[in-house]
Amino acid sequence: MGLNVLVVGAVALGPKVACRVKRLLPSAQITMIEKDCRFSYGGCGIPYFVGGDVQNIEGLCSTSAHTLRDAVFFETAKGVAIRSQTEAVAIDREQKTLTVRDLRNGSGTTALPYDKLVLATGATPVVPPIPGADLPGVSVVSNLDHADYIKERIARGDVHRAVVIGAGAIGLEMAEALADMWEVETTLVEMADQLLPQAIGPDMARLVQNHMAAKGVHVRLSDVVTRIVGDPETGVTAVETKSTRIPCDMVILAVGVRPNGRLAAEAGLATGMHGGIIVDHRLRTSDPDIYAGGDCIEMIHLVSGARVPMPLGSLANRQGRIIGTNIAGGQARFDGTVGTFCIKVFDVGVAKAGLTSQQAAAAGFDPVHSVVAQADRAHFYPSQAIMYAKLIADRATHRVLGIEAVGPNGDAVKARVDAVAALLPHGVDVAAISNLEVAYAPPYASAMDIVNNAANVLDNILMGYNDPIDVLAFVSDFNAEKTNVLDVRGPVESKAFREKYGKRWLNIPQNELVRRIAEVPRGQSICLICDTGPRSYEAQRVLKANGIDNTKNVQGGYGMLSRCEPDF
Amino acid sequence: MGLNVLVVGAVALGPKVACRVKRLLPSAQITMIEKDCRFSYGGCGIPYFVGGDVQNIEGLCSTSAHTLRDAVFFETAKGVAIRSQTEAVAIDREQKTLTVRDLRNGSGTTALPYDKLVLATGATPVVPPIPGADLPGVSVVSNLDHADYIKERIARGDVHRAVVIGAGAIGLEMAEALADMWEVETTLVEMADQLLPQAIGPDMARLVQNHMAAKGVHVRLSDVVTRIVGDPETGVTAVETKSTRIPCDMVILAVGVRPNGRLAAEAGLATGMHGGIIVDHRLRTSDPDIYAGGDCIEMIHLVSGARVPMPLGSLANRQGRIIGTNIAGGQARFDGTVGTFCIKVFDVGVAKAGLTSQQAAAAGFDPVHSVVAQADRAHFYPSQAIMYAKLIADRATHRVLGIEAVGPNGDAVKARVDAVAALLPHGVDVAAISNLEVAYAPPYASAMDIVNNAANVLDNILMGYNDPIDVLAFVSDFNAEKTNVLDVRGPVESKAFREKYGKRWLNIPQNELVRRIAEVPRGQSICLICDTGPRSYEAQRVLKANGIDNTKNVQGGYGMLSRCEPDF
Repeated sequence: MGLNVLVVGAVALGPKVACRVKRLLPSAQITMIEKDCRFSYGGCGIPYFVGGDVQNIEGLCSTSAHTLRDAVFFETAKGVAIRSQTEAVAIDREQKTLTVRDLRNGSGTTALPYDKLVLATGATPVVPPIPGADLPGVSVVSNLDHADYIKERIARGDVHRAVVIGAGAIGLEMAEALADMWEVETTLVEMADQLLPQAIGPDMARLVQNHMAAKGVHVRLSDVVTRIVGDPETGVTAVETKSTRIPCDMVILAVGVRPNGRLAAEAGLATGMHGGIIVDHRLRTSDPDIYAGGDCIEMIHLVSGARVPMPLGSLANRQGRIIGTNIAGGQARFDGTVGTFCIKVFDVGVAKAGLTSQQAAAAGFDPVHSVVAQADRAHFYPSQAIMYAKLIADRATHRVLGIEAVGPNGDAVKARVDAVAALLPHGVDVAAISNLEVAYAPPYASAMDIVNNAANVLDNILMGYNDPIDVLAFVSDFNAEKTNVLDVRGPVESKAFREKYGKRWLNIPQNELVRRIAEVPRGQSICLICDTGPRSYEAQRVLKANGIDNTKNVQGGYGMLSRCEPDF
Repeated sequence: MGLNVLVVGAVALGPKVACRVKRLLPSAQITMIEKDCRFSYGGCGIPYFVGGDVQNIEGLCSTSAHTLRDAVFFETAKGVAIRSQTEAVAIDREQKTLTVRDLRNGSGTTALPYDKLVLATGATPVVPPIPGADLPGVSVVSNLDHADYIKERIARGDVHRAVVIGAGAIGLEMAEALADMWEVETTLVEMADQLLPQAIGPDMARLVQNHMAAKGVHVRLSDVVTRIVGDPETGVTAVETKSTRIPCDMVILAVGVRPNGRLAAEAGLATGMHGGIIVDHRLRTSDPDIYAGGDCIEMIHLVSGARVPMPLGSLANRQGRIIGTNIAGGQARFDGTVGTFCIKVFDVGVAKAGLTSQQAAAAGFDPVHSVVAQADRAHFYPSQAIMYAKLIADRATHRVLGIEAVGPNGDAVKARVDAVAALLPHGVDVAAISNLEVAYAPPYASAMDIVNNAANVLDNILMGYNDPIDVLAFVSDFNAEKTNVLDVRGPVESKAFREKYGKRWLNIPQNELVRRIAEVPRGQSICLICDTGPRSYEAQRVLKANGIDNTKNVQGGYGMLSRCEPDF
């Protein structure tokens, strides 16, 4: 008899563990326990199924060679057994048995013995305690049944107006799926004052928000849903928030997920403050014969040091391999996460790794950041477009804490973030990013890549050479008449602003600044602006050398300003 | 009087140093000495100017805000002086003077005093000692004059057939520029038996070669040019190689560059075995008042430990900032290079970092590599395309030594290589790449990204779970009848091969293998093949568990085979 392995959950991590163990230890007997009747699917693909990029739901359940990953496939191709529509209800750690209930035929339970048990129980979407959240037409998005239900209703033409509650990744992806492919009038409601509040800072989020608005999605921030209105028979008709009422035929709840740690907790395994299972660096729970991974665990955030859930399919897959290796007798490690994340939002890509400034401050760092706008290819290469990047470091140690990027070329955005993400576990300083040896050729990058420049600017800020102001703070200060502008672009670029703002918007091109230094007013707050930041920095150095040191350099320049505040 | 800084060379590193010093130390007097009359240009953009992507040569000499970087620009916008058409002829280190000659008015020289001297003398294209290399119509590609000359002749319609000698980056870029935009019949001649021999391994190079051939470039490998034929008045008419004669109207010499270390060496500064200037980690030469960087130096390769030239514009820019910081009193470091490189070749992107297998072996490692073929997005996402990646590690320590990738989405190719490149200086092992936390979303990656999978496969190979054979070795063995094939794809995919190769090409789909194990011949060499590698690995594990252990898994499967040997 080979090793007897039970795996609870068969979506992402479960199948990975099962197949890895079987390959390394062919004598092992492996059974996956899954409460649904569909398994081993790409849950992250659901918005693309709903939005039509993926035509059939089978596409999400098939191998890259187009073989359906059904029970027969696992039996014959992988040598792994599946008990579907079966719920794991209890673990007896002393007897080493898992009690399961067959959901097809009622309440009878069976105790299955195991040598090694793997908990891949995933996470459950949070359903907020809002009246009406149980109405027909209100749906979470976490499995293929939800996906089927949503797409079927839309495809039938039943949905003309939808409200998505929650502006995290799934909320944004679902909003796009509804608005883009199906032209559903879609409103996105978020409690926080920005999109993607867990992922990126407010300025980067503003870029995404304006892009979504331009694509027709109504974005309501800092608003709270108080009630979902409708009829228990015919379904939802409106969403009421603190400030408005939004008529709709469908509501998507996307306010987050919670790790499924109950089975583990009830068996006396350690769980953390978020309800996720606690694991060691071998991904063992507090019982060395029980492993856990994926959305149901908490893991060490390698920048903050905190234990956090990080419900990402990529981590589940990587962790699955590690558990498989270890069950088969190996010594693979999972040290933690830096929370690398990316998302496509209509025509822009967004990516981040590490901590936002806000998260960094909460974790006890003193965060300082740069914001740069730069071409994603050589500036002379025809297909170049402007990318926006933010790099965050600790003031005292210069340790890099996070990076965020937004731009039309999503692969290029992801490239910059991934390269920095690779270094975050190593605790590198800003100089390491200044010299990060990313590849250069004019069709793909600038000689001084945007990621290098983000670090160079941050280094200049940390060293006191560059005194910056964020674009949102600048707009606020300017509108409150707390500061005026010295625009160091050419007269053509500054013309509209000079006409609009008069004496508050001074224009001296950077290359004339030395000669015209007498024109710069002294003793008042001045914000310097150019296209994207380098010339206003250059101007700030010139002004400083001439005794004018109460200037602030608008980070990302007019590029950021025009994207964050198109009506400025 | 401020610090007096002289900078020899004003293309990439020189201007970067000069402007950085001036910003940090406004009192400094900075003069750049440049022998040409054009400076501060993106030399890497020359092929894109010749090929028409960049319309005017001014595009290569302008800022991102479209300002021409001429002498007036440097004087007024940057506060930096330029002496162009001026040659630096000698350094007197005791007197701290640089002797220069004004090239416009003959032979008179001047001794300029310096406090700090920066050598940014660049590199010179190697002109091989071939008869006829000095004929009209034969050109190297290293400055804007060459670019002008080449493009002018082509645009006039004088060039119908061209020969490019040397299949490094510049050779490939120039071949594309000539063949693609101008439809010049172009032949690329290379001494080595592959394209890009300094950059990537033979299998990855074969993918690029076949792509170039499909785009109409004639590629001649393992061939040596013996003579360039032509008339000193009317120019080149043909190139003779060891094996053929190629009629042509233009010859591009692109066989490499050599660091310009002569000025330094004559002043008694240390130079290395490649003729480049030796610098420390502050980029100081053996004289602490003289700095050097860019194409004229040798730097530490952080994987091999050797001192190498690495003539890349990206390194020159990053080093320029470091030298500027240090001259201004800072303590910036340049530790070395991992040789990250990328190139667009028609419709594919190619990138690498670290050492090729061949270079790794030469550096004393025992290299082992994986080759994987995988979708660059989620396999269910419609715009996905297959990318090919190779990861190289040391057998004993599992230390990662290099990565190479090729695929149609160049940004995505670069993304994978950049992320691994970031870790190469840290001496990480293969497990670090298995768990490399690159961002995942279906439009941009698979949940288990190709870079993770490349490491997983390499780990399997190092651990003895996967016994691989490279596709080129497989083709050679199969053609020599040293091995037969077990194709574990479906009957449809394998049909053409079964018909062509008969009993030598057995087909048992992977999911039927356990049941049909008796059909597998024992005791003979078998190569296992599937679409891209995973199923043949799965099959290898099943066969091994059933006592059949003399199989090899064809790396990258049919994907690699069909791209490397389209006629197989």
